[in-house]
Amino acid sequence: MGIMDIKENHLIKLIKKYEKRSTDTIRGIGDDGAVVRLKEGKYVFAQDGITEHVHFEFSFTKPYYVGKKAIYVNVSDILSMGALPLYFLVTVGIPEKLTSTEIMDLYRGINAAAREFHLKMLGGDTIATYSDFFIDVSMIGILKTDKYLGRDGAKEGDLIALTGYLGESAFGLKVLKDGIGRAKKTLNRYVKRYINPRPPFELWNELMKTNAINAMMDISDGLIIDLERMMNESKKSAKIFMERLPIPNILKRLSLEELALSGGEDFQFLFTFPKEKLSAIENVKRKGYVISIIGEVKKGRGVKLYENGKKKEILKKGYEHFNV
Amino acid sequence: MGIMDIKENHLIKLIKKYEKRSTDTIRGIGDDGAVVRLKEGKYVFAQDGITEHVHFEFSFTKPYYVGKKAIYVNVSDILSMGALPLYFLVTVGIPEKLTSTEIMDLYRGINAAAREFHLKMLGGDTIATYSDFFIDVSMIGILKTDKYLGRDGAKEGDLIALTGYLGESAFGLKVLKDGIGRAKKTLNRYVKRYINPRPPFELWNELMKTNAINAMMDISDGLIIDLERMMNESKKSAKIFMERLPIPNILKRLSLEELALSGGEDFQFLFTFPKEKLSAIENVKRKGYVISIIGEVKKGRGVKLYENGKKKEILKKGYEHFNV
Repeated sequence: MGIMDIKENHLIKLIKKYEKRSTDTIRGIGDDGAVVRLKEGKYVFAQDGITEHVHFEFSFTKPYYVGKKAIYVNVSDILSMGALPLYFLVTVGIPEKLTSTEIMDLYRGINAAAREFHLKMLGGDTIATYSDFFIDVSMIGILKTDKYLGRDGAKEGDLIALTGYLGESAFGLKVLKDGIGRAKKTLNRYVKRYINPRPPFELWNELMKTNAINAMMDISDGLIIDLERMMNESKKSAKIFMERLPIPNILKRLSLEELALSGGEDFQFLFTFPKEKLSAIENVKRKGYVISIIGEVKKGRGVKLYENGKKKEILKKGYEHFNV
Repeated sequence: MGIMDIKENHLIKLIKKYEKRSTDTIRGIGDDGAVVRLKEGKYVFAQDGITEHVHFEFSFTKPYYVGKKAIYVNVSDILSMGALPLYFLVTVGIPEKLTSTEIMDLYRGINAAAREFHLKMLGGDTIATYSDFFIDVSMIGILKTDKYLGRDGAKEGDLIALTGYLGESAFGLKVLKDGIGRAKKTLNRYVKRYINPRPPFELWNELMKTNAINAMMDISDGLIIDLERMMNESKKSAKIFMERLPIPNILKRLSLEELALSGGEDFQFLFTFPKEKLSAIENVKRKGYVISIIGEVKKGRGVKLYENGKKKEILKKGYEHFNV
């Protein structure tokens, strides 16, 4: 039983079950649009979609996690602008092959991820497709401070830092694809990071409190390409050091450092801050969060990678997609 | 040359060319999200997608018009809530078969439709797909008055009215599909309505000025099914009269009245208003706009159709899709 057997009314009922209205929602799901009262402020808008075969394969993940991932990807975008996500809408394109159980699992996943961040679903669209499955989420957040944290805020002399580890998600996908050590519990961490890439929200919250950050973005396509994008927007260059990159030991042992440099979907935060704010960032680390200071913002353009004091050639920058 | 040959930077450049920033846009395209200053108010959010093979076929239309249509569909949703559309984001899913010229034509169409309504593009996503082409738009509008015009506002005793004609788009598709009289210029009007379903914005503006309307929605899936949805949300029933329906003569001559009742994509406005406001609506008609008063809101549930004083059985209600 697939989408053709679920009547519109049933699907709306299911989705309405997951609707958590805020007191500001004047009209929720069930109309041509949702009506929301917004106070005066600076709002951030993002829209990111994921499609089967390009962003995920059902052989490696499940509809529940695809639903979660579509939310996480957009939460990550909103957070990296320095904004708190509030509302979202979601369009799901469903091919005939999906069962109604899978469709419901997908919405369960969307709902589960939304609840983690207290997001309110405002509506969207569910459409039949010929063959591909896709999910496209638009999200609205509000700036935490008066200033947004974009890609264009890096200043000369800023230190460059990032949260968490690099290449975990890409390595998780590799574990699944190659089937290497699938039984080994020690690898679960990476597979989990690939399947369930929750943005480090608590750490982000601590970083916001420091008021130290000049530029921020999430690493979605790979460290090098994303850092290059930040430097382009900021009209600066980056000098980073291989030794300081938070690469999991297992990647080093397997000579897979490449995954840390150019593997996508880390969904960690890359940010810059003035040197004199270092103690504020160190304070966050002292609370037990993983933050690595990997380099410095310089004049010029591009990303320069150094290893043992020598400039290292960058072979692959990361995944070039078409996110605008 | 398809999507794989267009570098992200080229596509962003192309899209940035079409970016028309408002003075309220603090950060536009090129970051993880757009930053917009919003004044306090009631905002309407809608998100609607269209997919190849389900909502359109490239044998009957072109990428330029698909782009326009994706905007029109959402403008229609926002207007029917009584709100003025302001901003939008767009995700496009592009299969390998599309050429770069077609991709650019698509964005040209998006841009053309957006300009007609002074909409600002805030960003979105362009992703490769395995086989299907889709376009998904989210749109934000602001209420013109304090009250939204939803599906749930119809009052007992209200008159039921609609703008324009019924079945034009469905007949246009039939002309294309069957190839009947493709050469006849008299049929162009219907084909054009199918390919380029621009919402009747000027008429909508006049209707807003009357301050007479209690409930409103756009007819996207067919008169009967959409009117039934409105009555369900309003907890009322509708009594409408076949003789009063604005059915083009050609549909009557060809015995295709069915297309007027259940044909989708009319994108005309269906609305109700109190009898005592009739003169205000008549004033709008006098300005040369096509408005038909087709029936009355009653107690109860459902839609009752009458023809020559007798109740008429409704065989097909319209297209059941999964819009939430």
